Amino acid sequence: MIGFRLVHQAAGTRARVGSLTLAHGEVATPAFMPVATHGSVKGLTPRELRRCGVQMLLANAYHLWLRPGCEVIAGLGGLHRFTGWDGPILTDSGGYQIFSLAALARVTDEGVRFRSHLDGSAHLITPEDMIGAQERLGSDVAMILDECPPGDASRERVAAAAERTARWAQRTVAARSRADQAVFGIVQGGTDLALRAESARAMIALGFDGYALGGLSVGEPRPQTWAVAAATAPLLPGDRPRYFMGAGTPADLVALVAAGIDLFDCVVPTRHARNGTLFTRAGVRVIRHARYAADPLPPDEGCTCYTCAHFSRAYLRHLFMAREPLAVTLNTIHNVTHYQNLMREVRAAIAAGTFADFAATVLGTRCEEEVAPCPL
Amino acid sequence: MIGFRLVHQAAGTRARVGSLTLAHGEVATPAFMPVATHGSVKGLTPRELRRCGVQMLLANAYHLWLRPGCEVIAGLGGLHRFTGWDGPILTDSGGYQIFSLAALARVTDEGVRFRSHLDGSAHLITPEDMIGAQERLGSDVAMILDECPPGDASRERVAAAAERTARWAQRTVAARSRADQAVFGIVQGGTDLALRAESARAMIALGFDGYALGGLSVGEPRPQTWAVAAATAPLLPGDRPRYFMGAGTPADLVALVAAGIDLFDCVVPTRHARNGTLFTRAGVRVIRHARYAADPLPPDEGCTCYTCAHFSRAYLRHLFMAREPLAVTLNTIHNVTHYQNLMREVRAAIAAGTFADFAATVLGTRCEEEVAPCPL
Repeated sequence: MIGFRLVHQAAGTRARVGSLTLAHGEVATPAFMPVATHGSVKGLTPRELRRCGVQMLLANAYHLWLRPGCEVIAGLGGLHRFTGWDGPILTDSGGYQIFSLAALARVTDEGVRFRSHLDGSAHLITPEDMIGAQERLGSDVAMILDECPPGDASRERVAAAAERTARWAQRTVAARSRADQAVFGIVQGGTDLALRAESARAMIALGFDGYALGGLSVGEPRPQTWAVAAATAPLLPGDRPRYFMGAGTPADLVALVAAGIDLFDCVVPTRHARNGTLFTRAGVRVIRHARYAADPLPPDEGCTCYTCAHFSRAYLRHLFMAREPLAVTLNTIHNVTHYQNLMREVRAAIAAGTFADFAATVLGTRCEEEVAPCPL
Repeated sequence: MIGFRLVHQAAGTRARVGSLTLAHGEVATPAFMPVATHGSVKGLTPRELRRCGVQMLLANAYHLWLRPGCEVIAGLGGLHRFTGWDGPILTDSGGYQIFSLAALARVTDEGVRFRSHLDGSAHLITPEDMIGAQERLGSDVAMILDECPPGDASRERVAAAAERTARWAQRTVAARSRADQAVFGIVQGGTDLALRAESARAMIALGFDGYALGGLSVGEPRPQTWAVAAATAPLLPGDRPRYFMGAGTPADLVALVAAGIDLFDCVVPTRHARNGTLFTRAGVRVIRHARYAADPLPPDEGCTCYTCAHFSRAYLRHLFMAREPLAVTLNTIHNVTHYQNLMREVRAAIAAGTFADFAATVLGTRCEEEVAPCPL
């Protein structure tokens, strides 16, 4: 089950507001999904996620396949019941993780053979296995298995991976069996626009519920990331959601929304939170810095999150320096809320016809002029 | 400011229900204080603590003295504002921690000279410094600085420490200046009942707001811990709260309530939670065990906590094995709630005249017959 309705189209950019209907609820787009790799956003309970304004989560089928096992989760009633999150969930197939984490990943047309990054056990995952696993998990959106060549791969290697991904996509479509689960194709092709266009054509021909851009934000210069997205997104059907996998910073998000992207995920807000880097409207704040030792202000004045409403920079610095687990929770609440508020502002600006100005402000203040040196 | 009112006295034991009035609210006793050593209960926000039924926290003045510094906290409005916890807080002076953690602690009548366990910096803390620091922190209850000899110290050493603690107690009383902060004396004397009685007499002569038993649960056999408490508690004024420092397991708590103790603190529920050991009505459950890998039941059937209401043993085991930070939060919510519910049941049983039976049940099921081998 999937529905996607366009609500607003911004003038002057390709940015758009939409409403995505999935088995576990509606998602206002553009939307950002916090990452729950192992079925938990690190340090946050589901009710805390709701309070942060989160609409939809991403979990990783590759990680869950290895631990605790998709059969185990299916036996416990599926991913929603297992994790206690009753809103929409997208499961990434984990193609990127298989190729970056697993040892000795060997790809053939059959699928991927690899050894687990956890215990070295040998696995073969085929496209059919991967959609079957995600069907057992019961996610709202499943992703096809894709081949992710490294960022520095040759054009031939990138082209071959995109072609194999297209063949796998076809097998995924043939194997899928759940009407209540959307399946998204993944456009590969590296930074080569012709390969991207060819991959997009192949995916569109299969009639997916939505389309993702994969294999970007993997080391290429950021302007190139944005340019590839801006050139490729318009090739995808306007009436289907577009998902950019693995981005990004606030600047990335507005640049990619301007390119016509509707859906995002990234570890940046949650990983930065654990490293003590807090997002603010004026840039990032590295909370361990001594300048915050006695600072009574909240992390971001004007932010409405629980952390900013109740705690000072001094307390957050203290928790971080003392390695208190509460630092993870409070910093993550702030960053996740910041990202959700950013997307809400993005949607409001598109609806109000002011998105171009809004995007320029974000690109100016949150990328170049940081409160502290930007570690991004 | 302090008030203590006896509400019920159990027949057949010295157990009693009371109501403790402090600057930041009322506490129904017997009560258990979760430990917030550095000003945070590891992994729980203040609002989560409230939901667990927590009435009062313990923080450690020694740890806060070293990091971030009591002056810093005072400058930020005191410990309540700093931590976001607006209920009662007891600050332990940290005598026990100074002698167990600090390097080269050297005690003279003047005070304790030691090197910080964090950075090796040299410090001198006098009894006057320690009450002054706690006054700046603004805790509801301050503890005198006490000398804590090791558990295997000679009788002479234990006697000398108790005598010095009494001299320090006198200086603390002379130095205290806040009318809105209660100060508790600490009875020392190891496991020697005569020394305990002498120390109790010395403390009572100074007219404290409440009295603690210190220097127990430091390695002596548990029946001896209980016996010393049972012999010493009745020597303390019946109209003042009695606080047993650093206990314990559910069995310890009911045994010590039976001895007439009103107030408790211990790292056991929170530390065990981080180690994956969950308390249940039938004993402890070691959540990492493979037997829970596909177990759909909550940690403790019948428990009303957020964790038990939403998550399975299988999910908690998965989070623990994957080292997800949420494991700390969910396990701690459960154990803290379990302890608060235990104390609520203790109070209800005393009020109903059934405490002796209740205590026997707890001693029988939560100490000897564990769900899993008891690591306590």
